[in-house]
Amino acid sequence: MSDQKIGIWLIGAWGGVATTTVTGLAALQQGLTPEYGLVSALPQFQNVGLADWSQFVVGGHEIRDTSYVEAAQHLHQNSRVFDAATLDKIEGTLKEFDSNVRPGTLMNVGPTITSLATGDVLNHKDETTSQTLERLKQDLVHFQKKNDLAHVVVMNVSSTEPPQTEEIKSLSWSDLEAKIGAGDFAIPASTLYAIAALQAGCSHVNFTPSIGCDLPALEDLSQQTGTLHVGRDGKTGETLMKSILAPMFANRNLNVMSWVGHNIFGNLDGKVLDDPVNKSNKVHSKDHLLTEILGYKPQTLVSIEYIESMGDWKTAWDHIHFQGFLGTPMVMQFTWQGCDSLLAAPLVLDLIRFTERQWRRGDQSGTMGFLSSFFKSPMGTDLPQFHKQFDLLEAWAEEVSAE
Amino acid sequence: MSDQKIGIWLIGAWGGVATTTVTGLAALQQGLTPEYGLVSALPQFQNVGLADWSQFVVGGHEIRDTSYVEAAQHLHQNSRVFDAATLDKIEGTLKEFDSNVRPGTLMNVGPTITSLATGDVLNHKDETTSQTLERLKQDLVHFQKKNDLAHVVVMNVSSTEPPQTEEIKSLSWSDLEAKIGAGDFAIPASTLYAIAALQAGCSHVNFTPSIGCDLPALEDLSQQTGTLHVGRDGKTGETLMKSILAPMFANRNLNVMSWVGHNIFGNLDGKVLDDPVNKSNKVHSKDHLLTEILGYKPQTLVSIEYIESMGDWKTAWDHIHFQGFLGTPMVMQFTWQGCDSLLAAPLVLDLIRFTERQWRRGDQSGTMGFLSSFFKSPMGTDLPQFHKQFDLLEAWAEEVSAE
Amino acid sequence: MSDQKIGIWLIGAWGGVATTTVTGLAALQQGLTPEYGLVSALPQFQNVGLADWSQFVVGGHEIRDTSYVEAAQHLHQNSRVFDAATLDKIEGTLKEFDSNVRPGTLMNVGPTITSLATGDVLNHKDETTSQTLERLKQDLVHFQKKNDLAHVVVMNVSSTEPPQTEEIKSLSWSDLEAKIGAGDFAIPASTLYAIAALQAGCSHVNFTPSIGCDLPALEDLSQQTGTLHVGRDGKTGETLMKSILAPMFANRNLNVMSWVGHNIFGNLDGKVLDDPVNKSNKVHSKDHLLTEILGYKPQTLVSIEYIESMGDWKTAWDHIHFQGFLGTPMVMQFTWQGCDSLLAAPLVLDLIRFTERQWRRGDQSGTMGFLSSFFKSPMGTDLPQFHKQFDLLEAWAEEVSAE
Amino acid sequence: MSDQKIGIWLIGAWGGVATTTVTGLAALQQGLTPEYGLVSALPQFQNVGLADWSQFVVGGHEIRDTSYVEAAQHLHQNSRVFDAATLDKIEGTLKEFDSNVRPGTLMNVGPTITSLATGDVLNHKDETTSQTLERLKQDLVHFQKKNDLAHVVVMNVSSTEPPQTEEIKSLSWSDLEAKIGAGDFAIPASTLYAIAALQAGCSHVNFTPSIGCDLPALEDLSQQTGTLHVGRDGKTGETLMKSILAPMFANRNLNVMSWVGHNIFGNLDGKVLDDPVNKSNKVHSKDHLLTEILGYKPQTLVSIEYIESMGDWKTAWDHIHFQGFLGTPMVMQFTWQGCDSLLAAPLVLDLIRFTERQWRRGDQSGTMGFLSSFFKSPMGTDLPQFHKQFDLLEAWAEEVSAE
Ligand SMILES: NC(=O)c1ccc[n+]([C@@H]2O[C@H](COP(=O)([O-])OP(=O)(O)OC[C@H]3O[C@@H](n4cnc5c(N)ncnc54)[C@H](O)[C@@H]3O)[C@@H](O)[C@H]2O)c1
Ligand SMILES: NC(=O)c1ccc[n+]([C@@H]2O[C@H](COP(=O)([O-])OP(=O)(O)OC[C@H]3O[C@@H](n4cnc5c(N)ncnc54)[C@H](O)[C@@H]3O)[C@@H](O)[C@H]2O)c1
Ligand SMILES: NC(=O)c1ccc[n+]([C@@H]2O[C@H](COP(=O)([O-])OP(=O)(O)OC[C@H]3O[C@@H](n4cnc5c(N)ncnc54)[C@H](O)[C@@H]3O)[C@@H](O)[C@H]2O)c1
Ligand SMILES: NC(=O)c1ccc[n+]([C@@H]2O[C@H](COP(=O)([O-])OP(=O)(O)OC[C@H]3O[C@@H](n4cnc5c(N)ncnc54)[C@H](O)[C@@H]3O)[C@@H](O)[C@H]2O)c1
Ligand code: NA
Ligand code: NA
Repeated sequence: MSDQKIGIWLIGAWGGVATTTVTGLAALQQGLTPEYGLVSALPQFQNVGLADWSQFVVGGHEIRDTSYVEAAQHLHQNSRVFDAATLDKIEGTLKEFDSNVRPGTLMNVGPTITSLATGDVLNHKDETTSQTLERLKQDLVHFQKKNDLAHVVVMNVSSTEPPQTEEIKSLSWSDLEAKIGAGDFAIPASTLYAIAALQAGCSHVNFTPSIGCDLPALEDLSQQTGTLHVGRDGKTGETLMKSILAPMFANRNLNVMSWVGHNIFGNLDGKVLDDPVNKSNKVHSKDHLLTEILGYKPQTLVSIEYIESMGDWKTAWDHIHFQGFLGTPMVMQFTWQGCDSLLAAPLVLDLIRFTERQWRRGDQSGTMGFLSSFFKSPMGTDLPQFHKQFDLLEAWAEEVSAE
Repeated sequence: MSDQKIGIWLIGAWGGVATTTVTGLAALQQGLTPEYGLVSALPQFQNVGLADWSQFVVGGHEIRDTSYVEAAQHLHQNSRVFDAATLDKIEGTLKEFDSNVRPGTLMNVGPTITSLATGDVLNHKDETTSQTLERLKQDLVHFQKKNDLAHVVVMNVSSTEPPQTEEIKSLSWSDLEAKIGAGDFAIPASTLYAIAALQAGCSHVNFTPSIGCDLPALEDLSQQTGTLHVGRDGKTGETLMKSILAPMFANRNLNVMSWVGHNIFGNLDGKVLDDPVNKSNKVHSKDHLLTEILGYKPQTLVSIEYIESMGDWKTAWDHIHFQGFLGTPMVMQFTWQGCDSLLAAPLVLDLIRFTERQWRRGDQSGTMGFLSSFFKSPMGTDLPQFHKQFDLLEAWAEEVSAE
Repeated sequence: MSDQKIGIWLIGAWGGVATTTVTGLAALQQGLTPEYGLVSALPQFQNVGLADWSQFVVGGHEIRDTSYVEAAQHLHQNSRVFDAATLDKIEGTLKEFDSNVRPGTLMNVGPTITSLATGDVLNHKDETTSQTLERLKQDLVHFQKKNDLAHVVVMNVSSTEPPQTEEIKSLSWSDLEAKIGAGDFAIPASTLYAIAALQAGCSHVNFTPSIGCDLPALEDLSQQTGTLHVGRDGKTGETLMKSILAPMFANRNLNVMSWVGHNIFGNLDGKVLDDPVNKSNKVHSKDHLLTEILGYKPQTLVSIEYIESMGDWKTAWDHIHFQGFLGTPMVMQFTWQGCDSLLAAPLVLDLIRFTERQWRRGDQSGTMGFLSSFFKSPMGTDLPQFHKQFDLLEAWAEEVSAE
Repeated sequence: MSDQKIGIWLIGAWGGVATTTVTGLAALQQGLTPEYGLVSALPQFQNVGLADWSQFVVGGHEIRDTSYVEAAQHLHQNSRVFDAATLDKIEGTLKEFDSNVRPGTLMNVGPTITSLATGDVLNHKDETTSQTLERLKQDLVHFQKKNDLAHVVVMNVSSTEPPQTEEIKSLSWSDLEAKIGAGDFAIPASTLYAIAALQAGCSHVNFTPSIGCDLPALEDLSQQTGTLHVGRDGKTGETLMKSILAPMFANRNLNVMSWVGHNIFGNLDGKVLDDPVNKSNKVHSKDHLLTEILGYKPQTLVSIEYIESMGDWKTAWDHIHFQGFLGTPMVMQFTWQGCDSLLAAPLVLDLIRFTERQWRRGDQSGTMGFLSSFFKSPMGTDLPQFHKQFDLLEAWAEEVSAE
């Protein structure tokens, strides 16, 4: 392992997932916590040559005026996570990372997200698309230079945007570049961030259901710039369970008649998803894989509801109604009571370590399909089953270890 | 597909699983039911050349005096399974199969099972071990001859025996054969049935937690006789879920602190398992795989309780307490409400079809490890994960299809 | 007990609740079933002098063209309820009752209910309100006369209507009567049925969330006609649980922060409630009592979703998030897996028996508050706690027994 | 309200329930927490004239050498309860109360409890029963005098003892007194503590399933000494639910076929209850009331299992299988996820306040039946339904308010 520094650039830097990621990273750097929840800490990845926790430096883009210290305290009190002693010990690190956070952009994020904005970001309202893109890119370049970073991984953990228009999916990179120049095309913020990343030579990972880099145009760009990217929508709870359980129903030829899933939680993400437009993006992401795995479409229902008292704790209740032998109906139900950000944060760190390692191999570009097990709507693969996706990751690890 | 007849010989012929298997088979033969629950009906097994439902003829050994018609009616009324119209239509077939059922043996089955015995089996109490073995073998030979069967698969679906002594596990076949001759060794009934099967040139499958053919001596015998066998303990409910879910906790590095599973049901199997000696066999079978999959031993608890009102419906409640990132405790719970015999019966049919096909390849003998996905304590494999076991089955199917 | 005949007139005569009520009544008349689920069969009501099952004769209004025999078969096959033998034995009775069913009215029932209509009811589309009222009344009079009935209890078990306008709640009976005459007021069908009942000297019970007799005008009318009435919305499942559990949270000073309830089911009622307008009526009925019992308003969520595979089986999942000592959050969850019509039907029979007995006391009129324990939105009482409502019923029984 | 001081004497002073009670009391004294969970804080008890939190002083008997500060820290870290800031602020009060804790007695507590003992209590092993009784009494007298206390309520919150012999239940107080003098009778520690309390003129409340004061002899003694007492086994979780839910099944004539309850938790109480002898006491206490409420005996199962990872959090899963109309089987299940000590502690404080108030009325003695809603096995009442028990408390409050 070298002692080169590596940059983590978080879009949505002071949100729940980001704050938990940074809190966890700081605690890992000081050896204050075991490595539970981290896939990259499993035995099968120990010979891959992943970066050490000590090598990482954090910065990011935000649209609200707060800080890691404040956001972590809020999670501690509101959701009963972290312990007071750890928060004390890492305060210095959090403050250091706070100084690397810059105003992001509100371009085409819709009214619900816009209404959250406070502080410096409000000063950039009148920029053209090109000006914004340039500013975001410069933030990355400056971060890398100032901290002497070998590489920067840009990680989108910002609020879920409204769904994009269909048109953007049919554009090539040169089409899209032209439209940005012309300034007459509503490009989603998540995509703008992704472009900035790839053009600045960074890797880009999209942990959100927003479109981000999941576009032919961005695949073009990543090939041209020799950069890496992947997404989208981190697979942490109910959908993870679906990608685990549905193969069993398929393999046992049990006919799933209906699969109902209700999710309740009370964090900021939940508040944004309470807007039906933003929610539609997430529901789609949670719903499609059943059909892909089963090979037929059972009646499905996915609800996501904002229940304030839950804080960052999400409870999913799933009711699976299936027919067995002689058409006999049977039922499986599960409840999943997890803390949303604490499920997401280690995966964010894993994705960064795996991405950086892939970049370090040299000569790699385009979509990283081997990371599909981390996503609800994975790019670069057709395999919806978790265990088949995980096989891809293990195969990659063996390949890299052998190099 | 040929129109050769194939024999199914059920040990525990009028029990819940057996009766449901035969009811289902008869319904399938008349095209009265869809093929839900049957693994062998999946698309990936359509080119393997499995036998048709119409080819099968049923017989078996029992220790209680009843019949398929009576047993099926009891399940219908007591457990609200099957429909009245189907039962009417298949009555003739059931009666035909009833005529092939012969008295089994009570040798070393322990007091709880012995107390169930009624009818003809009571006339065979004074036999020596050799005499019993010979009788059982003759029943198979006679069944095959009378019905002009190309092959017979013997399937043990009888009550769970008490655990066996350790000594038997260290014996070779010649040791064991000598002891049978000497008549001074307590050989479990399940093993006696298995020996009879292999010596009669039949295949043998053990769907129960009893020891059956899971002994070095029986592996010797199967090699010598060129016969096939596999076991043990059909994986139909809670343990199936464990072999599906535990890999997820392992792959996500979530630290399982405790896994508690409570099972309630009210059928005859439940009554036998209410005897703590018989139960110990089953609990062991349900418990070991967590450690194998996780690589460490969480605190576990498995209870199986006889609750009469449940009839053949089993409810399992599992509570999984795990630590995620930063040591945060989270909980997953599931309930599984399935009808025990209806989950088991299609697998019994699958095992018979796959076994017969393997036999038909010719020149095969010994343990059929490719059938491990069907068992809680599979023989012939070290892989505890369901999906890896299922891969073995699919690989076998490709191999056979290619022949 | 006398051997006078008593009429049961079901609005929604061939629906799920009605069909189950009639199936159960016929089975009780022949002694084919125990009296489980019947409140009126409890020991504390044995000296009240309730009518015998043998005394009841059934008729009703419908808008769809079917029959008890057909509807009961459909429930049997689709929802696995009733047993085939019972259905055979009661076929004659069902056919007899079928002959008493008359076309109802579609006045102001909204598009979803209207779309269900088939058969004779379509011939009455052009009637004025007065004509319809007269026709419905004559049906009751004719039923009573033809069958020589001492009394008729009209029971509304028809589909849930859309919510009514506010205006109707402020009208006196003479206001409303005038408006009916004028023919320019949109009077809900449920109220029209109630008026017909009271004017024909029948008692009226509203088992649905529709407005029915829950109006000052109808209370006026019942006083004037010396008739009895009560409602509304039978309390059979999740709301019953709420009225049982919420008092515990109140009495133990546990602070309910949120109460989330999701209901899934797949019967015709569910299909009608899938229309958001009709559903709003039901959701309101399920939601208000928490605030009444707790004395403050926790965040609540009630969802009702049509999941076809469930048939008449309803599963409710409730998640109650509460704070105990030192503000510590805790959770109670329950699932309720009941068959909707089978929960409702015995209450329908109970309400009829209790109502008829109250009528038999003589000189009684107006709202029967002592029946509040049967309703989600009870009339004639302010007590939302189930046990306090049940105390009223027991007190009534003691009073009547003493007469 | 006067400013007289009142003593709380806790048997099992540094256990989980006791520590939580004292932590909560200290927080209430400083106004650091809302009064959630406290029955005595409900509106209906505001005119009763209950004592203020500021009036209470704590002492007690223990058999392990620890302290409130240490025990509270352990609960905080192990079970994620209390918050660090509150613990800081109340440290002084806890230390003050620590100085009032004295060694208790190990007389007849059985091997499991004896094995927990550390510190001073080990010096009293050779005492006779009379000497121990005298010592315990002197501790109470000294506590009262030193702190100038108007009254002392002795509250047993110590570990569950093994079941007592039947003989003791048939003794009068003079019989028992003679046996204590003779020194040849195995009197349970819980009863010895109760005798000490009553002889010292204190009130005595038994929050445990141990026999304590639930004996004719102790009722005699309380009458003779003009003292108050009540018990036993605080009703905080699953059994509370049973006393709430079972009346609903009874009132609706739903036939409960089986009621299965599994409890898992990981605190010290759980460790003691892991001894089957001690557990039998608790299971009996949780089981009897179903039959009392329903009027018949369904099949029941209550399991209590020690699962270390749970800490003080208890999860109960209950499965209720019942028959409704036409004998149709249905299911209700619930899970209760509560923190055991935090459920118990406010009830301990309530019981003390209500008891002290009853004492302050003057001229009261014997069993306080009006407190039955707090207990699993209540003394002084035959009513098993929670709501009827709560009615007794409200009636008492009205009576006292009116004085
Ligand atoms: N388990 C999980 O938590 C999980 C799983 C999968 C996906 N996700 C996704 O991760 C994202 C973050 O989740 P969260 O719980 O942290 O949400 P959050 O609301 O706590 O955080 C989002 C942050 O993004 C910021 N933001 C919004 N728009 C921005 C913009 N245009 N530019 C820069 N910053 C912006 C917000 O101010 C906020 O601080 C969401 O899209 C969520 O759906 C989360
Ligand atoms: N889902 C499932 O039902 C399932 C899953 C895995 C394993 N199993 C195992 O399958 C076996 C059968 O289960 P079941 O529910 O049918 O039980 P069952 O009790 O209904 O049937 C067992 C039958 O075996 C007969 N029997 C007992 N001892 C015998 C002997 N020595 N020789 C011949 N017959 C004998 C009994 O009379 C009875 O008819 C059990 O061992 C069970 O543990 C069942
Ligand atoms: N557990 C329960 O089933 C339950 C509990 C409380 C209330 N309810 C209420 O009882 C009612 C009946 O429930 P269901 O499950 O039987 O529904 P259903 O849809 O099976 O039956 C309703 C019947 O009413 C008929 N109908 C509709 N409009 C009519 C009209 N204007 N005149 C005459 N008939 C009409 C329909 O054709 C149908 O046959 C619903 O309002 C429901 O909300 C049911
Ligand atoms: N929700 C609840 O926590 C709850 C509900 C009902 C009843 N209870 C009962 O309350 C009691 C206390 O529960 P807990 O969780 O605090 O248990 P705990 O084990 O944490 O505390 C019991 C304390 O009693 C002490 N002790 C044991 N024997 C003693 C003796 N002879 N004299 C003095 N001290 C002694 C132990 O050292 C320990 O500190 C138990 O009997 C329990 O069953 C608790
Ligand atoms: Na079984
Ligand atoms: Na209904």
